[in-house]
Amino acid sequence: MHMARLNVAVVGTGAVGEAMLAVLAERHFPVAEIKVLATSRSAGKKVFFAGQEVTVQETTPASFAGVHLALFAGGDASKEFAGEAVRHGAVVIDNSSTFRLDPDVPLVVPEVNPEAVRGHHGIIANPNCSTIQMVVALKPLYDAAGLRRVVVSTYQAISGAGSDAIAELLEQIRAALEGREAQPAVLPQRIAFNLFPHIDVFLPDGSTKEEMKMVNETHKIMGADIPVTATCVRVPVVNGHAEAVNVETEKKLAAAEAREILRRAPGIVIQDDPAAGLYPMPFTASGRDEVFVGRIREDNTVANGLNLWVVADNLRKGAATNAVQIAEVLREYGML
Amino acid sequence: MHMARLNVAVVGTGAVGEAMLAVLAERHFPVAEIKVLATSRSAGKKVFFAGQEVTVQETTPASFAGVHLALFAGGDASKEFAGEAVRHGAVVIDNSSTFRLDPDVPLVVPEVNPEAVRGHHGIIANPNCSTIQMVVALKPLYDAAGLRRVVVSTYQAISGAGSDAIAELLEQIRAALEGREAQPAVLPQRIAFNLFPHIDVFLPDGSTKEEMKMVNETHKIMGADIPVTATCVRVPVVNGHAEAVNVETEKKLAAAEAREILRRAPGIVIQDDPAAGLYPMPFTASGRDEVFVGRIREDNTVANGLNLWVVADNLRKGAATNAVQIAEVLREYGML
Repeated sequence: MHMARLNVAVVGTGAVGEAMLAVLAERHFPVAEIKVLATSRSAGKKVFFAGQEVTVQETTPASFAGVHLALFAGGDASKEFAGEAVRHGAVVIDNSSTFRLDPDVPLVVPEVNPEAVRGHHGIIANPNCSTIQMVVALKPLYDAAGLRRVVVSTYQAISGAGSDAIAELLEQIRAALEGREAQPAVLPQRIAFNLFPHIDVFLPDGSTKEEMKMVNETHKIMGADIPVTATCVRVPVVNGHAEAVNVETEKKLAAAEAREILRRAPGIVIQDDPAAGLYPMPFTASGRDEVFVGRIREDNTVANGLNLWVVADNLRKGAATNAVQIAEVLREYGML
Repeated sequence: MHMARLNVAVVGTGAVGEAMLAVLAERHFPVAEIKVLATSRSAGKKVFFAGQEVTVQETTPASFAGVHLALFAGGDASKEFAGEAVRHGAVVIDNSSTFRLDPDVPLVVPEVNPEAVRGHHGIIANPNCSTIQMVVALKPLYDAAGLRRVVVSTYQAISGAGSDAIAELLEQIRAALEGREAQPAVLPQRIAFNLFPHIDVFLPDGSTKEEMKMVNETHKIMGADIPVTATCVRVPVVNGHAEAVNVETEKKLAAAEAREILRRAPGIVIQDDPAAGLYPMPFTASGRDEVFVGRIREDNTVANGLNLWVVADNLRKGAATNAVQIAEVLREYGML
């Protein structure tokens, strides 16, 4: 069963598209034929999949003929082509925010709500990077003790804003070291040796869309309206998002209990021996597929408080790995 | 009254010592004679005060003869020489953590508890950088509405770890750009394009000493045991600490009310027009003496929740400026 190899399209050749190709190969996803699709600007470019050169093609509706699985890396392509892909019979796993809150579209983190894929009508949405790593850490605590409230502050890497933003960080740093000025173009502010609480656009209530993604996507994925308040901050780190997460559980959990619950949970690696210098960091999480949790401490300012420090590779678990894991769930369920 | 110029000693020639000299001059503190003291390693070095070259002298007990005011920049010198300075009749304002929680030593932020200086016995302690900027923002809210709980996550610049740490960041960044490896020596982990939740040492309960400073110093300065839980994080920013502060007040404050209360408060500049790209950042706060507050939002996950984003120059308001302001309070009270 399910041994048939699949024709797979990856739509997008930016940082997330590249990570999708890498993760498909690393996890030995059963690919028959791979197509890499992008805008006309990138068509003709060469990329690599499992050691083989692949020529990027311009995305057109006809691109999806014969495609079983289409992974959309994000951006405008989803609005334009996800429906076309579905009409051609493909299952779409979409990393853009377009469909995430659509009630007809499952929003899935395989460690949290894999069964949600069963309700799909062609499109399954991949959540926002900062939401994915948080819910992987929250779900086991929710199951064990309930969650009354979450206060999260993020430390989000530049790769989440795309390859051009990484180039901008590096160029600004070179300029600063040489005493030159460099104006922001991709990011909203100077990022070299700086940081700012501005990711995605501002909403009328003064929060950002990124902050509201962490609230609304968490509700949908967890299937529970857990109160979440978020402050999302861009930091001059190339790759790997960190989060300081303060939670109030319904039932008291000692730090040691919380640590054991998280240690046994899927997709989590505990790094929590601070006296030995062991705690999660972007530099050590980068290139890895798991969510790293450490600094697990009781917070005695409320009855059942806990502090957690949660780090993951935002291009991998926060995007590409999670998308490929969704495809793996579909295979496991015989739906692909 | 109080017009006599004073003999001032600055003890320490690192980042904070330098900032103390700059701030004394900028604020036209009435200096008769300036002495710059340091270890034998730095003796003979030339520094500048108000455009004049000053030769650094090795600190000895006799250094404090005739000194009216001694500003200790931090480190081991305080333990060794603060008592000597007092015995010689100087008032000591000490930026180290040595005396901060000593019940006989006032711990002062002039915008918050200036009157506390009246109880001094020769030494007044300057609080930790991350605490100072937080309490400047919390005090007006506490006075207006009470404070039930504070959850703070920090984004702390490298300058807080001293000049050698800044050099280490820059060298690691150069190494990374050139594809070389560079091991951490001053900081506990690689800092280039990385960050870590490790400032000062870890305590048995899993928190850091830095995190407990934010709790205990806040209690002492505010004169109230407001529940505070902190996660302190070192980020690859040269100068300027940022803090995501979530507060629960006793009485409800709308975001607009909180903004007006903070706008009228001493030492605070409101930068809160996010749609126009205006919010506090380390890069814009660096070199300034005020505390910058923005992203003021209601947090509806609790009855009376507010989110604030608080940024200040950790070498200035977080250290040197606060120390000089304490000296100004002493002058104003006729105590110096």
